[in-house]
Amino acid sequence: MRITRYTDYSLRVLIYLALQPERLSSIREISDSYSISEAHLMKVVQHLGQLGYVVTLRGRGGGLRLAGAPEDIRIGDVVRKMEDDLSLVECFADPGACCITAPCKLRHVLRQALDAFLAVLDDYTLADLTTRPRAKALKACLGLDAAE
Amino acid sequence: MRITRYTDYSLRVLIYLALQPERLSSIREISDSYSISEAHLMKVVQHLGQLGYVVTLRGRGGGLRLAGAPEDIRIGDVVRKMEDDLSLVECFADPGACCITAPCKLRHVLRQALDAFLAVLDDYTLADLTTRPRAKALKACLGLDAAE
Repeated sequence: MRITRYTDYSLRVLIYLALQPERLSSIREISDSYSISEAHLMKVVQHLGQLGYVVTLRGRGGGLRLAGAPEDIRIGDVVRKMEDDLSLVECFADPGACCITAPCKLRHVLRQALDAFLAVLDDYTLADLTTRPRAKALKACLGLDAAE
Repeated sequence: MRITRYTDYSLRVLIYLALQPERLSSIREISDSYSISEAHLMKVVQHLGQLGYVVTLRGRGGGLRLAGAPEDIRIGDVVRKMEDDLSLVECFADPGACCITAPCKLRHVLRQALDAFLAVLDDYTLADLTTRPRAKALKACLGLDAAE
């Protein structure tokens, strides 16, 4: 059981942007900082923009920033929206795939477990992941100290 | 986010066997009932045997049965043991993969969410999934009525 890399990268982008509220960031510098593919990140950032998490300013001096306050971004919401498939087992998406779907209690149990998983993530916002005293160490890891 | 088909099939095998405590079952009939690959099921059953969930009696008149009572088989334990990768994000398995692993709070949040997921599954045993009034409908779906 894994969260997609796509969702993982989206959370890393949001963490990066939350650490730099006072300036615009570029996809290039985010991809360099995390050593991950710039092409992959472009799709992630575009999707984050469509969902209203990120604002992109085009042209010279352009770049990315968070669209809102980190306190308003719930981690559970980000995972729900970025994760394209939260169908833990095939009967979540296709009730006809298994012959016992109708009477089977397992999918209800798994649904309840998934709800508990997301409820924990809903208890945290992006601010919880990026505020002091954590911010300083995160910035150092990402090479952001010099940029301030 | 998905549970592997391997784990899904293992739960289906256990449900099937729990519905037939009074006789031995064959991999062939389980694969026929669920319309899933016999070869795939053989690996699943072998693993369930190694873990002590299932007993296989060889030879003519042989077959499979549960090794213990359905009340003693926790769904959370089955998922923990059958799911080969519960590393939700890459830093669970490889702390060096992402530069911010050390100060990052996200993996602790995700670990807490995974624990909540498994805790719900620990609240249920195989008996909860297969006892009356559910048993009759499950048996009908699996074509087990005539076998009794």
